Amino acid sequence: MSDKVAVLVAGSWGTALASVLASNHSEVRIWTRSADQAEEINRRHSNEHYLPGILLPDNLIATTDMGAAVSGVEAVVIVAPSSAMRQVSRDLKAFWKPDMLCVHATKGFETESMKRMSTVISEELGCPEGQIVVLSGPSHAEEVVRHCPTTVVVASQDETAAFRAQSLFNNNDFRVYTNRDLVGVELAGALKNIIALGAGLSDGLGFGDNAKAALLTRGLAEISRVGVGLGANPLTFAGLAGIGDLVVTATSRHSRNWRAGSLLGQGKPLDEVLESMGMVVEGIRTTQAAYALSQQMNVQMPITVQIYQVLFQNKSPRSAVEALMGRDPKAEMETMSQETWEQWYT
Amino acid sequence: MSDKVAVLVAGSWGTALASVLASNHSEVRIWTRSADQAEEINRRHSNEHYLPGILLPDNLIATTDMGAAVSGVEAVVIVAPSSAMRQVSRDLKAFWKPDMLCVHATKGFETESMKRMSTVISEELGCPEGQIVVLSGPSHAEEVVRHCPTTVVVASQDETAAFRAQSLFNNNDFRVYTNRDLVGVELAGALKNIIALGAGLSDGLGFGDNAKAALLTRGLAEISRVGVGLGANPLTFAGLAGIGDLVVTATSRHSRNWRAGSLLGQGKPLDEVLESMGMVVEGIRTTQAAYALSQQMNVQMPITVQIYQVLFQNKSPRSAVEALMGRDPKAEMETMSQETWEQWYT
Repeated sequence: MSDKVAVLVAGSWGTALASVLASNHSEVRIWTRSADQAEEINRRHSNEHYLPGILLPDNLIATTDMGAAVSGVEAVVIVAPSSAMRQVSRDLKAFWKPDMLCVHATKGFETESMKRMSTVISEELGCPEGQIVVLSGPSHAEEVVRHCPTTVVVASQDETAAFRAQSLFNNNDFRVYTNRDLVGVELAGALKNIIALGAGLSDGLGFGDNAKAALLTRGLAEISRVGVGLGANPLTFAGLAGIGDLVVTATSRHSRNWRAGSLLGQGKPLDEVLESMGMVVEGIRTTQAAYALSQQMNVQMPITVQIYQVLFQNKSPRSAVEALMGRDPKAEMETMSQETWEQWYT
Repeated sequence: MSDKVAVLVAGSWGTALASVLASNHSEVRIWTRSADQAEEINRRHSNEHYLPGILLPDNLIATTDMGAAVSGVEAVVIVAPSSAMRQVSRDLKAFWKPDMLCVHATKGFETESMKRMSTVISEELGCPEGQIVVLSGPSHAEEVVRHCPTTVVVASQDETAAFRAQSLFNNNDFRVYTNRDLVGVELAGALKNIIALGAGLSDGLGFGDNAKAALLTRGLAEISRVGVGLGANPLTFAGLAGIGDLVVTATSRHSRNWRAGSLLGQGKPLDEVLESMGMVVEGIRTTQAAYALSQQMNVQMPITVQIYQVLFQNKSPRSAVEALMGRDPKAEMETMSQETWEQWYT
């Protein structure tokens, strides 16, 4: 088996994962469209725009030639933005061999179709979705390249593929768990951004730690509900891709979703918030998508509904929280159907 | 039905719960052994030592006479420290009527026997454990008395008792969910303090957000494992009494457990840490108990074992983290037995 790996797209997370792989393998090739960026990585071993102050490993080699990047590798790791995933996968198709392992580490949906990333990739590569592996979990790129201890999960319907991905990435700083719930891991990673927005909203209103912990916990319950409706294992949401990633996203001032929510909570209108951020806030698009989804599926998502009304229907953040607290008293847990149990626990 | 409620012991959490109840009921009586404290509450409507700067409601009345406190009430809420629970319950026995609802809100075990609080109370009152209700969740007392939005869970094996407790406490600032997993809610509240200690340890070592999120998530997985072994529902640990309370405890500088862990992580020896804190750190006693329990039950608790070795066997915090990261690669989830599923989901 080859000891070479290719990573597609040299953003902060792609570069961080490439540098993890470079500790474990003889050669890692990172593909980028930008000749300047490729030259910077090869000559100065840095990627200043995305990971300022970091010296990258010598055996991490950049190229703008996707065919050269992928030729003869054991595995391809795709870390394209969700909006670019279809095009990158389509470009990869010409160089792709069925025995290559395909891992992706992108959190989000294809906006128009609401398709998960592994669906998009498998459609373009013409391989079964069950063969794709997703990597997710609580992992700031800045900490990973500094060798801070980090844990992630790799999920695939194909157990062998998940084990291959685990041994591809696992080392003493970067601990990798396997999971067979591809759908749950992908949904948790995308939907958690709604709850991070809500946590920011609550902090912006000055509501305190009790309210924020409640939002995280009840938010987790409602995104699990949608997940289970779409075939996920509820306990995936209690794991690294769910609560683990949610804690990192919702308690960090570096999170764009938290920050946008916090500004809204302070009373700033949405267009002003977006302008002041100057970049895409994924949780906003995801709220819109999840709102539509919950209506289609007839699943209760009370927190998502309130955030949707704050974002798109001029509801005041304070009355949104009041609406959440004033609902009819409820039981904490849903029942789990026999089908769900049989699917995941037998 | 009477509209009066009694609360036993006027610490910060007992007083905070009494003030929630005073919004919902005509009269709330709080019992304390201290005549000075009773006089302060009745005359100045304050409890400065525990809740500085807070004006308590007029219909919250303090007394040192337990019989007078309990006479003719609909419900008794016990919020004694775990070490005093047996004695307070024994004293209550003389005034207790079987139609009174009994709720407790104490997190911990009886140290020597490792019994849960509801076991201790039911032994002393001579009523079935299944009738007791536990109240738990992410709830700093200081925020509750300031009417910050808060959510908690009330759990009992007796569904009617849980509903009674829900309508006793629920209001627009204090949202109460029911759960029928008494054992899980009690275990989650006590065991989460071990993980809060571990989170402090990681922060003290300067390991960053990825490591802390990993500790919270994998810590949750291991305390769930013990819980399930003792008859709890795994999803209780993903709820308010589990991850909700853990997030509040492990990310707040006010938490004694977090603070003790953080000092240990900075290299201070245990006796020095305890001396500088000047009060009981529950997570330390709980680590000792859980370590014994995991060996008895033959359940893997890798994080608890490492924290135990740091606390009691002079292991360095850094090598404890290295041991955790260097374990054999694992799958993220356990399977759920048919018995567990049938017990909780059918």
